[in-house]
Amino acid sequence: MKTLHVDLGDRSYPIYIGPNLLGNADLLTPHIGGKQVMIVSNETVAPLYIEKLRAGLADFQVQEVILPDGEQYKNLDVLNTIFDALLQAHFDRSCTVIALGGGVIGDMAGFAAASYQRGVAFIQVPTTLLAQVDSSVGGKTGVNHPLGKNMIGAFYQPQCVIADTVVLQTLDKRQLHSGIAEVIKYGLIRDAEFLAWIEARVPAMLACDNAVMGEAIERSCINKADIVAEDELESGVRALLNLGHTFGHAIETGMGYGVWLHGEAVATGMCMAAEMSRRMGLLNDDEVNRIDDLISAMALPVRAPREMDNERFLELMAVDKKAKEGKIRFVLLKSIGSAFVSDDYEPSVLLSTLDSCRSME
Amino acid sequence: MKTLHVDLGDRSYPIYIGPNLLGNADLLTPHIGGKQVMIVSNETVAPLYIEKLRAGLADFQVQEVILPDGEQYKNLDVLNTIFDALLQAHFDRSCTVIALGGGVIGDMAGFAAASYQRGVAFIQVPTTLLAQVDSSVGGKTGVNHPLGKNMIGAFYQPQCVIADTVVLQTLDKRQLHSGIAEVIKYGLIRDAEFLAWIEARVPAMLACDNAVMGEAIERSCINKADIVAEDELESGVRALLNLGHTFGHAIETGMGYGVWLHGEAVATGMCMAAEMSRRMGLLNDDEVNRIDDLISAMALPVRAPREMDNERFLELMAVDKKAKEGKIRFVLLKSIGSAFVSDDYEPSVLLSTLDSCRSME
Repeated sequence: MKTLHVDLGDRSYPIYIGPNLLGNADLLTPHIGGKQVMIVSNETVAPLYIEKLRAGLADFQVQEVILPDGEQYKNLDVLNTIFDALLQAHFDRSCTVIALGGGVIGDMAGFAAASYQRGVAFIQVPTTLLAQVDSSVGGKTGVNHPLGKNMIGAFYQPQCVIADTVVLQTLDKRQLHSGIAEVIKYGLIRDAEFLAWIEARVPAMLACDNAVMGEAIERSCINKADIVAEDELESGVRALLNLGHTFGHAIETGMGYGVWLHGEAVATGMCMAAEMSRRMGLLNDDEVNRIDDLISAMALPVRAPREMDNERFLELMAVDKKAKEGKIRFVLLKSIGSAFVSDDYEPSVLLSTLDSCRSME
Repeated sequence: MKTLHVDLGDRSYPIYIGPNLLGNADLLTPHIGGKQVMIVSNETVAPLYIEKLRAGLADFQVQEVILPDGEQYKNLDVLNTIFDALLQAHFDRSCTVIALGGGVIGDMAGFAAASYQRGVAFIQVPTTLLAQVDSSVGGKTGVNHPLGKNMIGAFYQPQCVIADTVVLQTLDKRQLHSGIAEVIKYGLIRDAEFLAWIEARVPAMLACDNAVMGEAIERSCINKADIVAEDELESGVRALLNLGHTFGHAIETGMGYGVWLHGEAVATGMCMAAEMSRRMGLLNDDEVNRIDDLISAMALPVRAPREMDNERFLELMAVDKKAKEGKIRFVLLKSIGSAFVSDDYEPSVLLSTLDSCRSME
């Protein structure tokens, strides 16, 4: 087992990475203050792993709330069912909420923990690659609104994160690939060496090799933890983590939550950001092709859906959090391994990027 | 104008107290970062004061969202209408939310500001005495749930609080008395001298004398700011601010939100806490009578509603935030001016307190 520390002063916490950590009472118990534990999971994950998790919680009063599975359920109404469960169980401020699931469960359980009685303890047990390398690290929690993704939420840090590599074996292939998109992202924004490491391990990652995935998770989490420690509330460098996300969120919202997986939309978004960078004279053709090739090799989409015209993209991106007083801001690439935030571009460059990145199929 | 400082490190903020502060651009402008301002108010307050407030915001892009008036609307659904307004206006992270209204508006606008895009700037312009001396100071925000009051929320500090004493002139008398209940509370829990000061000024306070109210607000805010600075997240001494609130919240919830005003319920709750303290041998008859007399003199109720039997009280108090793993905790009085938290009491004392404090009418 590997232990990383996210350094955030009195909100610091450890990330445990390794095989068969799920029911390990020695890992969980030190991070639970009271007696009351609410496990938040979904209909897909709970049948596979909730009993294993409960085995590590024998000393506690454990309740569970099982949500429907999917990004389309990440909203205020479904969030309220977590509050219902906590209140019906008479859970008080000393309780702990454990998220057992992917990014949607982590975001919702985390926001419920942040908001229940103005904040109770929270533990992340991410069961998807995406959640292990991204959403479980950094304290972003929240729900979607019909007018925009993740528009309602809180920055709220967990007591610990437990990333069990064995659970990836049961992961749906699309979900696995979606997680790999975020792994690639860390290479693109700040770690060219890691990107080359990934390029050399495409078959092993697609086969979900345990040792390779363990290292991929660790290197991703180190990159993310470094950035989050530097900028907890996303006022600066943390924005780089949004590479591909402005385009990607527009695709997710525009197609309807759950039609495109988050990582699929981000994968395409990264190709679009690379293309926009090329049109601004920052990347050359070879670099853009290298990015497209890696994303394609990981069975991820490189082109935006035909259904979304430029007007729809612009409308959806204008409401995205990365917008600053009207002008849409993008994370762009100076080179592979070096990203920056910019709203200094010609509108025509954005429009031609949208035109050229749309699928013809 | 008086300026108090609430000392919370990098979350410190000033409270401005005085007449005719509402449309003062010099007070507001330094606390607004971006250009976008959303005023959250209600149907009662907006017609009276929103134009005056807007006069101080001439340099900004100002939108407003007007909520229905009443504690019964302090819920997730109505909260969502604030998010709707922010998103429809395409407001980004640099926006500022201004609460113009009483405690309900402050709590909801504050939680909306805490949650919108994981946190935007927030300014409190409280228009009731209760909000000026209590809810606008200390960063508690949130909404009610059918199973309990203030069960969903955040600790979130404003950029500043503007307490204009002139607005109290238009306040409904019940609302005024309700605010006086919280003023009395500061005297009871930690400031015996202030309590004597209040007792000597009953007619002036009931007549809403400007100078007397200004001083009452200032002394209340100093007491509250001291406590909040010591214990921002309510892990210790801040719990004393809940004198009368465990009983009071049960009355509010039990009677249906909005039937009893918050301050009315707290007033009765303080009498009940005093009676419980007497039954535990802490207060004598004279002290309890002195408290009842002051609360009666301020036209506030001293007895719990006949409709609520002991079972209903116990059920509602068990879910209150002050409960800790099953045992209901109360703020009790060692003497006038000295409160403490306790769950060390005989169940029979609680039951006889409930019996003796119920209205016979």
